Amino acid sequence: MKYSELFGKTAREAPSDEIAVNARLLLKAGFIDKLISGSYTLLPLGLRVVKKIEQVIREEMNTTGAQEILMPLLHPKEIWNETGRWEKARDVMYQFEKNKKEFALSFTHEEIVLDIIRKHAFTYREFPIKIYQFSTKFRDELRAKSGILRGREFLMKDLYSAHTSQEDLDKYYWEVKDAYLKIFQRFGLKAYVAEAAGGVFTESHTHEFQILSEGGEDTIFYCENGDFAQNREIAKVTAGIKCPKCSGTIKEGKSIEVGNIFRFGTVYSEKMKVQFTDASGKKQLVYFGSYGIGLTRLVGTLVELFHDDRGIVWPKVAAPYQAHLIDLRSNLQKGDSAERFALYEKLQKAGIEVLYDDRADISAGEKFADADLIGIPIRLVVSARVDRGKVEVKKRNEQESKIMAVEEAINLIN
Amino acid sequence: MKYSELFGKTAREAPSDEIAVNARLLLKAGFIDKLISGSYTLLPLGLRVVKKIEQVIREEMNTTGAQEILMPLLHPKEIWNETGRWEKARDVMYQFEKNKKEFALSFTHEEIVLDIIRKHAFTYREFPIKIYQFSTKFRDELRAKSGILRGREFLMKDLYSAHTSQEDLDKYYWEVKDAYLKIFQRFGLKAYVAEAAGGVFTESHTHEFQILSEGGEDTIFYCENGDFAQNREIAKVTAGIKCPKCSGTIKEGKSIEVGNIFRFGTVYSEKMKVQFTDASGKKQLVYFGSYGIGLTRLVGTLVELFHDDRGIVWPKVAAPYQAHLIDLRSNLQKGDSAERFALYEKLQKAGIEVLYDDRADISAGEKFADADLIGIPIRLVVSARVDRGKVEVKKRNEQESKIMAVEEAINLIN
Repeated sequence: MKYSELFGKTAREAPSDEIAVNARLLLKAGFIDKLISGSYTLLPLGLRVVKKIEQVIREEMNTTGAQEILMPLLHPKEIWNETGRWEKARDVMYQFEKNKKEFALSFTHEEIVLDIIRKHAFTYREFPIKIYQFSTKFRDELRAKSGILRGREFLMKDLYSAHTSQEDLDKYYWEVKDAYLKIFQRFGLKAYVAEAAGGVFTESHTHEFQILSEGGEDTIFYCENGDFAQNREIAKVTAGIKCPKCSGTIKEGKSIEVGNIFRFGTVYSEKMKVQFTDASGKKQLVYFGSYGIGLTRLVGTLVELFHDDRGIVWPKVAAPYQAHLIDLRSNLQKGDSAERFALYEKLQKAGIEVLYDDRADISAGEKFADADLIGIPIRLVVSARVDRGKVEVKKRNEQESKIMAVEEAINLIN
Repeated sequence: MKYSELFGKTAREAPSDEIAVNARLLLKAGFIDKLISGSYTLLPLGLRVVKKIEQVIREEMNTTGAQEILMPLLHPKEIWNETGRWEKARDVMYQFEKNKKEFALSFTHEEIVLDIIRKHAFTYREFPIKIYQFSTKFRDELRAKSGILRGREFLMKDLYSAHTSQEDLDKYYWEVKDAYLKIFQRFGLKAYVAEAAGGVFTESHTHEFQILSEGGEDTIFYCENGDFAQNREIAKVTAGIKCPKCSGTIKEGKSIEVGNIFRFGTVYSEKMKVQFTDASGKKQLVYFGSYGIGLTRLVGTLVELFHDDRGIVWPKVAAPYQAHLIDLRSNLQKGDSAERFALYEKLQKAGIEVLYDDRADISAGEKFADADLIGIPIRLVVSARVDRGKVEVKKRNEQESKIMAVEEAINLIN
């Protein structure tokens, strides 16, 4: 992509009404646009990041045998009444009436999934069922002040599973836990699996995936060795004491909840009468679980954790482009566009996703500042002081640059 | 994908309350699930079709220089008031109040796009701007009876463009028209470009892309030579007369509107004060257009056009899988699963997307019927009567099958 043509360029200032680091940097760098508090447009750079993250999650979901679907966002009241959550979740749900019919916007999809399952699976042979989607969620947030960490409208990956026994549900629950840890690890994030309250989802405790960050809204108590964590809301431990699981010490930290997993057992399937016929021909209730990762929240988390005073520092796997090419050759004729674009095309042919700052009327200093703000992992510079066939390579997270042959740079990126 | 594990299998009957051919076939074949009238879940097969179609549209949009973004679905009343459409589009929009704030659900995105543009583009150098998204639209439909052709909630590709002159807008408008025709052509659809009324979008006439089909809700008058068409709503011609453009005869037909394109000029930018600074430093209004393709409607259109009494007949480019493999070797031992899966794995290694009906307890007749219903373009059968290393190949749209070497079949599919 030529930067001159990219829609959504860097801005000098972030909007003054935005206080969260993640949103300030993403707005300033041209990844998102703010519609209202807690609701953002993904501009081309932002959408690329989301798609990269989606793909990592998709791979790990598919590895667990889950299948991708897409469910509606507008739900009839009747289906939410089956579980009593029309009333119970009234605070967070957008609910309204139109032409004498009452609707709610999706804040989660348990009821919809169970409705699909009861229409499609009848015998034990058809279980387990593991289905997931990437889709929009709506939650009424009175104070949406954490940028894209907490929105009225946001993207989520939600996975649901249905089983013929508690044992099978448990087995998959822990498998998803491991898949989640792997996902966060692929982004360079250390996630703590914290016991937590179930909110409007369940009376039981559940597990959250928490990333330590000053930008977070949660507080966890966690073992320094990483094998134990509790959300402050339910914590029975406190900072400074010995970990109940090992010899480590408990610490306290602000954190961001990037995922959560729920085992509902038969609570929902009983209310919605979701049953299967077992091997002996008897009707049994389905065992059900759900598992979420906040997709746009994960984008914000990466920015909170990976930035410096000059801008974002994307991990490679989430970066919108792999290389940021800057051409500073003022000695080139304006008409010499073949030479001007030769390296850009060569990189693209090598399968590298390149953002090429081809702007003619912008100073080197501004181009470098924009590259740092946008945060693509590798910066490539061609200039009068670099020999033909070579390029100056600098990693975003390092200070020193190095001049190397273009082929070598391509190998480094791939 | 092993069919035994696929979520969303074929059903004996479509729901009795569904009258549209497209929805009946898609429901019966396991592509979609119905939540309420006019709102469906895309099951794994259905989502695969949507993603295939998306990719074709994406390629053609990118070829016009457009860039992909993703905008919010929940909009504040204030932004719709700027153009007067909060009142004007009240019938089709879902509007509601929550915590003393009024919101609407996206039925289109002109206002949101123009708000983004006025915050991001300031001088003539930054134009033209061409941005698009694949996203959900909501329209209140009292009588949603055409299956996925008309929904309360549906997927759409919407493209928006902003220009510094009417000429530049016109140029791009016709470029998009050609891109749309190419898209429909890639799916094997003959689209008529019909003059039509602008509805809640514009007072001016506009162009719709109409596909002749008995399942359609529209009626067009069109020239048999294909160079002229008008929606009945505004038609000045009638069936049987001579075409105003050529020597052909005008015919009348029911049709499905799969896309539309609008030139708004400065009507919206004037109301929303979307301006740019021209080369002489003067403020000018932006010229604006929008261009839509109904994504889920296109799925329904393909089914309406491409089916027979046994099921769907997907065009290759939209098919959920490229090959449907059936194994009828009753002589194989149950434990001989390496042999049972050898061909499936070979096809996958050759890069072919295969749906493999591996069910053990289903008759050949049922497997053939399911394959015909699902409609994957090529059916491959291995059975006792086919020599090892060979496979029986039948195209969904042909009667005769042919026995050929596996390698030959792979070449045929690729």
